[in-house]
Amino acid sequence: MIRTPTFEGVVAAAASIAEIVPPTPLLPVEIDGVRCFVKAENLQPIGAFKIRGAWWRLSNLDEEERARGVIAVSSGNHAQGVAWAARRLGMNAVIVMPRDAPEVKLANTRALGAEVVLYDRPGEDRDEVAAHLIRERGGTLVHAFGDPWVIEGQGSAGIEAAGQLGTDPSRFIVCCGGGGLAAGLAIGCPNTAVHVVEPEGWDMVGRALAKGEIVHAPKDAPKTICDALQPTATKSINLEVLKGRAEPGTSVTDGQVREAQRWAFANLRMVVEPGGAAALAAALSGKIPLDEGTVIMITGGNADPQAFAETIRN
Amino acid sequence: MIRTPTFEGVVAAAASIAEIVPPTPLLPVEIDGVRCFVKAENLQPIGAFKIRGAWWRLSNLDEEERARGVIAVSSGNHAQGVAWAARRLGMNAVIVMPRDAPEVKLANTRALGAEVVLYDRPGEDRDEVAAHLIRERGGTLVHAFGDPWVIEGQGSAGIEAAGQLGTDPSRFIVCCGGGGLAAGLAIGCPNTAVHVVEPEGWDMVGRALAKGEIVHAPKDAPKTICDALQPTATKSINLEVLKGRAEPGTSVTDGQVREAQRWAFANLRMVVEPGGAAALAAALSGKIPLDEGTVIMITGGNADPQAFAETIRN
Repeated sequence: MIRTPTFEGVVAAAASIAEIVPPTPLLPVEIDGVRCFVKAENLQPIGAFKIRGAWWRLSNLDEEERARGVIAVSSGNHAQGVAWAARRLGMNAVIVMPRDAPEVKLANTRALGAEVVLYDRPGEDRDEVAAHLIRERGGTLVHAFGDPWVIEGQGSAGIEAAGQLGTDPSRFIVCCGGGGLAAGLAIGCPNTAVHVVEPEGWDMVGRALAKGEIVHAPKDAPKTICDALQPTATKSINLEVLKGRAEPGTSVTDGQVREAQRWAFANLRMVVEPGGAAALAAALSGKIPLDEGTVIMITGGNADPQAFAETIRN
Repeated sequence: MIRTPTFEGVVAAAASIAEIVPPTPLLPVEIDGVRCFVKAENLQPIGAFKIRGAWWRLSNLDEEERARGVIAVSSGNHAQGVAWAARRLGMNAVIVMPRDAPEVKLANTRALGAEVVLYDRPGEDRDEVAAHLIRERGGTLVHAFGDPWVIEGQGSAGIEAAGQLGTDPSRFIVCCGGGGLAAGLAIGCPNTAVHVVEPEGWDMVGRALAKGEIVHAPKDAPKTICDALQPTATKSINLEVLKGRAEPGTSVTDGQVREAQRWAFANLRMVVEPGGAAALAAALSGKIPLDEGTVIMITGGNADPQAFAETIRN
């Protein structure tokens, strides 16, 4: 039986995470004359919010499970989160990553002591690769978004933001891959509107919300620079939380994402990776209404230096 | 009679500044196996710690002085600090800036509503230009570092860091131009060692500390990428505070500064301008001993996009 993520779980996750990493800053910004906030999760020790869910899942494993280690599938940020938490807890971690993941994410994951197993993004099914590894070696699968602890852990970012703001945010604008963070925020801040933002052509959560059921990415889905936001479909545990709770989905183009990266460089003096800038891109391009209680999640900063240099020069 | 900056003044400045801007994060880092901290002043609304001294000086002007406005001389970050504080207090600000200041700093200063008067860095004496303006138009000069309120305001960064750390830092490693921040930290945290770091060939504070008197930059001082750290000499108000209080000065090369900018990009996901990375450069290159109470000041993030792109690509 699968556990259901709960409000109490998010609150407990927030308390646990507050003990191991400092809060990320909630920075005031002004966009089109409206003062609102960004939550800088790119300043987490691993450069992404994923440290939250990974910590909450791994620290809730029992002694026997810890001894067997964990297996995760990730394009790079969940990988680093799991590797970081595993090292901290003295566990083994094996991470299945796409061969075309940014070099910086592969290197960081290995530097954190995890074993990396590569797969080919278009040809192989990454969940198959992970399932095979688990059959072979044992260990607990830590799914990047379809996991109740992971959802609760990610939601701790919302509790933290509400604490910094002194009240519940009016709305979260959230970069969205599989929907783990969005679901966690929805549970942790039940009075706050949740807007999911996805790359154009990879809006599997937005489409699932519109249709009321899981939608799979077509084989010919377009290329996107948002490597962190390309899961082939959301999971039912995420959709169940978000259905009737999240606002209709929003999509952003590569050009809008790059513009947001440049804006963050110049105005926030922060490095934001493409997938981490999607929510900001939606806010800057006027696709989602802003007000003074709006919190825009900047979710990751593990940018490839060459690509980032190219973006800020244009 | 010139006012002397005091501990009580720094404490009062810290309280005043805490009311207008959120604290900048104190981020844990690991350098050469030593866990210590960076204070991310590049995340201030103007991208530099200068907002502190400017706010404390301008908010202490009386009504008559406020009506006459302020004049400042700056390569760019003090300019933005003064412009920001002046706008907030409804005052006029005229800023004298070198013609070769980074375009981003000129644009930001103007965007904050200040009038910018340009001068030629090698040919004209910037203090002369400012004095001429004051004779012509009136207004209060807000010196970038040789001013008691400015020193107290900058020192608030130390009080803030100590509060975040829960104890006095063992040492501050500080990017140093004229010595305003270093003097403020020395006064605000009397039990903390202060290490000033300057660009090679522009170590006017280090030389003044060694000689016990003010030293002027030679006409043929080398080029440096640290545009924010090129005052031609410290002032006696700064030297009086730092004499017998600061550690011997440290110099860093352009190459070490660029390496620090790359390190901050990859490990902190932050944009740091050359002058803001000098202290980090000294720490990374092993020039100053580190311990777990060390706080490295990252002082500015207003980087030129082209130059920053060049740096992170190498």
